[in-house]
Amino acid sequence: MCEATNFKTIPGGVCAPLGFRAAGLHVGVKTHAAWKKDVALIVSETPCAVAAMFTKNVVQAAPIHVTKAHIAKGKIRAVIANSGNANACAPQGEENAEKMCAAAAKAIGCNPEDVLVASTGVIGQTLKVEVIENGVPELYGLLERSAEASDAAAHAIMTTDTVKKEFAGEVVIGGKDVHIGGIAKGSGMIHPNMGTMLCFITTDCAISQEMLSEALQEVVRTTFNRISVDGDTSTNDTCCLLANGLAGNPEITEKNEAYVDFVMKLHEICYLLARSMAKDGEGAKHLITCTVSGAKSEEQAETISKSVISSTLTKAAIFGCDANWGRVLCAMGYSGEQFDPEKVDVTFSSSAGDILVCQNGRGLAFDEELAKKILTEDEVDIDIAMAEGDESCTCWGCDITYDYIKINGDYRT
Amino acid sequence: MCEATNFKTIPGGVCAPLGFRAAGLHVGVKTHAAWKKDVALIVSETPCAVAAMFTKNVVQAAPIHVTKAHIAKGKIRAVIANSGNANACAPQGEENAEKMCAAAAKAIGCNPEDVLVASTGVIGQTLKVEVIENGVPELYGLLERSAEASDAAAHAIMTTDTVKKEFAGEVVIGGKDVHIGGIAKGSGMIHPNMGTMLCFITTDCAISQEMLSEALQEVVRTTFNRISVDGDTSTNDTCCLLANGLAGNPEITEKNEAYVDFVMKLHEICYLLARSMAKDGEGAKHLITCTVSGAKSEEQAETISKSVISSTLTKAAIFGCDANWGRVLCAMGYSGEQFDPEKVDVTFSSSAGDILVCQNGRGLAFDEELAKKILTEDEVDIDIAMAEGDESCTCWGCDITYDYIKINGDYRT
Repeated sequence: MCEATNFKTIPGGVCAPLGFRAAGLHVGVKTHAAWKKDVALIVSETPCAVAAMFTKNVVQAAPIHVTKAHIAKGKIRAVIANSGNANACAPQGEENAEKMCAAAAKAIGCNPEDVLVASTGVIGQTLKVEVIENGVPELYGLLERSAEASDAAAHAIMTTDTVKKEFAGEVVIGGKDVHIGGIAKGSGMIHPNMGTMLCFITTDCAISQEMLSEALQEVVRTTFNRISVDGDTSTNDTCCLLANGLAGNPEITEKNEAYVDFVMKLHEICYLLARSMAKDGEGAKHLITCTVSGAKSEEQAETISKSVISSTLTKAAIFGCDANWGRVLCAMGYSGEQFDPEKVDVTFSSSAGDILVCQNGRGLAFDEELAKKILTEDEVDIDIAMAEGDESCTCWGCDITYDYIKINGDYRT
Repeated sequence: MCEATNFKTIPGGVCAPLGFRAAGLHVGVKTHAAWKKDVALIVSETPCAVAAMFTKNVVQAAPIHVTKAHIAKGKIRAVIANSGNANACAPQGEENAEKMCAAAAKAIGCNPEDVLVASTGVIGQTLKVEVIENGVPELYGLLERSAEASDAAAHAIMTTDTVKKEFAGEVVIGGKDVHIGGIAKGSGMIHPNMGTMLCFITTDCAISQEMLSEALQEVVRTTFNRISVDGDTSTNDTCCLLANGLAGNPEITEKNEAYVDFVMKLHEICYLLARSMAKDGEGAKHLITCTVSGAKSEEQAETISKSVISSTLTKAAIFGCDANWGRVLCAMGYSGEQFDPEKVDVTFSSSAGDILVCQNGRGLAFDEELAKKILTEDEVDIDIAMAEGDESCTCWGCDITYDYIKINGDYRT
């Protein structure tokens, strides 16, 4: 069966929480597409506790260095982000990232250290920081607390994404309505190793820095770190969570019931963002949801599920709507985990039905027509039952298509 | 510069060594293509010492289990192999693999345990072993010691390969001409983790079982284990080396000069086979040779080089003849190795010239026209200089193309 995704969401994106305004604008970083927004700004009216996670790539973009340094100095007021240039391995990288913060800070009237910065786009080219500096006053003037403003910011961080990724939700904590909203971008260089993307999440929850970090790590592990588009872990991955406390709930300072409620809602938002990132993988026609159950441990289930969603051959088979379960078993087998192949069952499913194609590690005669019909749907599930234990894990990926090759065969020029 | 590949080879393939005969025939495993050979037989007139290496995939095909058991019983006379069906995760797998050995043994007049077996093709479907059994007498009748016979065997193990992989060479050991010949097949599900392919190598060298195993392991580590087509490690990878001793050299029983001469020649043959496998990767338009120098250790250089040749985004850039070196740095960065990105230089080269595109981890202004010209050649090199130490390593891969997606989107049906 397909997994349930019927979480209750609300409009407003990063502007759903109290006290957050956003804007997005085309300033000229993306030279080929003047109609495409390329700088986003998110501002809180009061200082925010902040938690952040970054790529584990040894090669890290300049804005990551700058953002880390600013977080170390204390509370945060704003995030500025551009698309069209990753400012990674680029001349004057740190200097230009600092200039982006300084420009935003000047408009807001805060210290440059109160601003976080992120970039996404092509690696190795000098960022035209002056077009961003020149554009910031107009960008600041566009700041609003509205669904339209969050939408503009969500669009301004997109690169090859075909749809914006934006979700918000609310939860009652300590008798107060607490809001969480997020925007994110994919859609290539996506592979589980931290967030593998840009993602900015806002909340008006009152929560300590320490609990905020715990919450983010807990949630990223089971959402963004369980998606893969192409196995390439980017140099720029950044996931920031800003909490300004304006909801007025008693501050969460320990792992109590309120913390659990907050984490559950945060998980929903990150789950929806992560899933939409996998679904909008570059050139993708299918969202692939792979659930491994009956594993010895969650780690085993996760490693195997990630191996399956990352298998180029499995991805090509799903593109071809071909129930080639042998590739699923093959990818399980080279995952690095030990298991008994003779105890593995594989089922393909979608809204068109489900079909058991492999039982106890051996092929079954199955209805090829039905299998094709199932795999023709946009969202397909690969369910693997292992009979090794009671643990399970779900990861999300997408198929590999002609369009992926086309998009990435000439991305830079 | 492009690497030298001017090793001296001789004709004859697996029939170049004394006492080896071969044959290839269409018996009907490949039902869609009656003109395509699908069973190969290689027979030595005298018993052979044998060394073999297999996939590290946890899911191993039935013929691997059978071949391992037969090797454990002592010397070997022959190898029978089919294409068109991997006999992996398939009903009656071991039983059918044993039947292939028995059929070959009956024709040859030896014990079934003296025959090795290998299969390649689709996973999970029952092998039509009776068509092989029925075809073996005719196949046996075709056995010859000739270049044509080796060619027939080389073709009979091909699946999506577009060219046969067959090389042979000779070396004087102990005053005698010693011959080594090999055939191999790719061309998808290829990723460094043992041989990742089928490969059968024959030699008339007199060499002990122990030294033969040492030699094969030493050589596979630096040849077949350094190629990648798609990151998928197959269930069926098998590399067998048969030595019948008919060259008449004093038997090699220790790591003396004769051993070194043998290993060097074996290395040449395996290098040529491995390189041709990468070049003929499914749908590939470019052979990519990535050399990492200035590394702290050979292991570091190998890990980084493999990460680069396995990067889907780098492969797509090479397909598009796009000098997107940022993806090379990115792939280095997520390899798992620690290094200073600020000390990395990247050069693209081919027979059309060479161009430094990144120095000390930052982009250089470079001639885009020249870069395009260089990357338009069939064989392109990515040279990475790290300035961390004195060690280096070369690995081989290929680009990812529309044809790869086409081939693998509907391979099974």
